[in-house]
Amino acid sequence: MLTDFGLSDPFVGLMKAAILREFPAGRVVDLCHGLAAQDITAAAFWLAKSYRFFPPGTVHVAVVDPGVGTERAALLVAGHGHWFLGPDNGLLAGIATEDARVYRIDSSRLGLTRVSRTFHGRDLFAPVAGRLAAGFIDASAVGPAASVHVADPLPQVTVRGTERHGQVVVVDRFGNALTNLEASMVSNAGALAVCGRELPILGTYGDAEPGQCFGLIGSLDVLEIAVRDGHAAQVLGLKRGSPVVLR
Amino acid sequence: MLTDFGLSDPFVGLMKAAILREFPAGRVVDLCHGLAAQDITAAAFWLAKSYRFFPPGTVHVAVVDPGVGTERAALLVAGHGHWFLGPDNGLLAGIATEDARVYRIDSSRLGLTRVSRTFHGRDLFAPVAGRLAAGFIDASAVGPAASVHVADPLPQVTVRGTERHGQVVVVDRFGNALTNLEASMVSNAGALAVCGRELPILGTYGDAEPGQCFGLIGSLDVLEIAVRDGHAAQVLGLKRGSPVVLR
Amino acid sequence: MLTDFGLSDPFVGLMKAAILREFPAGRVVDLCHGLAAQDITAAAFWLAKSYRFFPPGTVHVAVVDPGVGTERAALLVAGHGHWFLGPDNGLLAGIATEDARVYRIDSSRLGLTRVSRTFHGRDLFAPVAGRLAAGFIDASAVGPAASVHVADPLPQVTVRGTERHGQVVVVDRFGNALTNLEASMVSNAGALAVCGRELPILGTYGDAEPGQCFGLIGSLDVLEIAVRDGHAAQVLGLKRGSPVVLR
Repeated sequence: MLTDFGLSDPFVGLMKAAILREFPAGRVVDLCHGLAAQDITAAAFWLAKSYRFFPPGTVHVAVVDPGVGTERAALLVAGHGHWFLGPDNGLLAGIATEDARVYRIDSSRLGLTRVSRTFHGRDLFAPVAGRLAAGFIDASAVGPAASVHVADPLPQVTVRGTERHGQVVVVDRFGNALTNLEASMVSNAGALAVCGRELPILGTYGDAEPGQCFGLIGSLDVLEIAVRDGHAAQVLGLKRGSPVVLR
Repeated sequence: MLTDFGLSDPFVGLMKAAILREFPAGRVVDLCHGLAAQDITAAAFWLAKSYRFFPPGTVHVAVVDPGVGTERAALLVAGHGHWFLGPDNGLLAGIATEDARVYRIDSSRLGLTRVSRTFHGRDLFAPVAGRLAAGFIDASAVGPAASVHVADPLPQVTVRGTERHGQVVVVDRFGNALTNLEASMVSNAGALAVCGRELPILGTYGDAEPGQCFGLIGSLDVLEIAVRDGHAAQVLGLKRGSPVVLR
Repeated sequence: MLTDFGLSDPFVGLMKAAILREFPAGRVVDLCHGLAAQDITAAAFWLAKSYRFFPPGTVHVAVVDPGVGTERAALLVAGHGHWFLGPDNGLLAGIATEDARVYRIDSSRLGLTRVSRTFHGRDLFAPVAGRLAAGFIDASAVGPAASVHVADPLPQVTVRGTERHGQVVVVDRFGNALTNLEASMVSNAGALAVCGRELPILGTYGDAEPGQCFGLIGSLDVLEIAVRDGHAAQVLGLKRGSPVVLR
């Protein structure tokens, strides 16, 4: 489960109740619920970088859904050996690669007759997740084949000669700034430029001097900007969109 | 589980440990733990509005318990096809309707000999929850039949002619203000008045213009005051007790 | 699981994914993830005080690990009827008493070939936890016998005649200040001195007058400093290291 619901209200718990109603023996794991409200970009980033660490056949439910109750479609993407459920607002666009199959969830075909207009997480995505995970239905039972209509919100890397121009996508709780520059781009780079400064690329946090700013390939296989024992985003003034260049 | 313990300390984890000691195969769902400290009203509201989304036979453990260790009773309410455990401080009063059965938990009858005076969540409610959920005991085994002594803290709606005078009960993390006005009262209303303003009643967030203030029947079947892409409580100055009138 | 990862990012969820990959039928309980970043002392305190409430045979995974990816060892401690996994940075030193066995985790012996340098929680500790909990391996399979190299960060109590000089170790979310003074020390004490004030020692929160400052034996069997219906740490200016004296 990946949402922007936070944990101070009962909404995540209500989704779990709805999953377990369908599949009492299910295991539900929280990926995270602390995204900024309506932050589809962060949700798309964490989902794309995280799903492969889950067992094959996992059902991922991602609900950041400002358009809930409108005409936006509810999607199931079957691909990469996993299932992904979420609204058609860009959240699943990066996952829905050419070899993935996409279905539009049809609540009436599933017999879900009491779907509220404001909480599809509980009333639509959760019961479908439970049924899929339990093996009660297969992907094609959720509705007709469809395609993704809203594009991936994640920024693309720009290539300028030997340079790779990326940017910060999310800042984690330690202040590390995660970028859209993949590990494979970093291994060929001679230099890293951030905020007008050239930074070294190190192997892990402990390789830096206390207070030193540096880049590293983080555990999600993207370039991160970090400060040893410090909050890189605050120290360097980084936020989403801040440019990061590999030369 | 519903508590005011927060998630920064290990208290919720310790309750789960105590539940799983009694019932290793149990499934524990967090409804929420982020209530303001000692906020019995919010706990009573979320519990009353949420329990019916859980599978029948669920054991709900609600611990907001400033009087822990004093003479206040620990209660089990069996009703509505569910079980509810919590202190007799109003939290369960709304649940304990006439057709529900109420028991006073007797730790010595249950053989719970090491009950601390400050953490009945871990030492009393959790083991009882585990045993009930596992089917090791039935309701009458927890202690003698009893009744609720502390009244429901939730405010009542006042009827004045064709008007229904309600109020804000909780504000959720998105800033939506949830009221004590039930969906059935809203369907007959011609107008909604909040903070001296008349607001439209819409079907979902996406039906509003960006920035618009409006009312809607939320996913818990009560009237909510919301602002499209905004924080209604901040925009309108709403907090618990703010009057909301249906005409 | 006990970490300083917080719940706003997916790191805790990724560790759970890695545990469930090894042991799909496992039960994972969050002790807490809201520790201040790199706060090894708080982690050591909560772990030492909490583990005995879990069922015997529980695998405890504690990851507060500023030295991840450096030469610091990854440890398994088998003792007290439980298993404990964590870095050798003091976190497990108090647990590794004389009758406990300590092993250094050897990732290559375990066939863990893709261990990142920045997230041993996911790539090393979680899979070992899953395999141990599932019974796929026993303790000696993780690596060679070893010993703890970094000392316990928890402060010791000083004895001066009939006085016991302790200190505040952590402040919980209610503002209660938990100390390193054990219940057994308190029962013999005639007086409690904190911040130049003498405080009474009461049985539970409800025994105090509203606003009263007092000491009590809390649910983790250490002396806590509390204020009825208030935040003791703020009222009394308490933080880690503040002296607390029993006479």
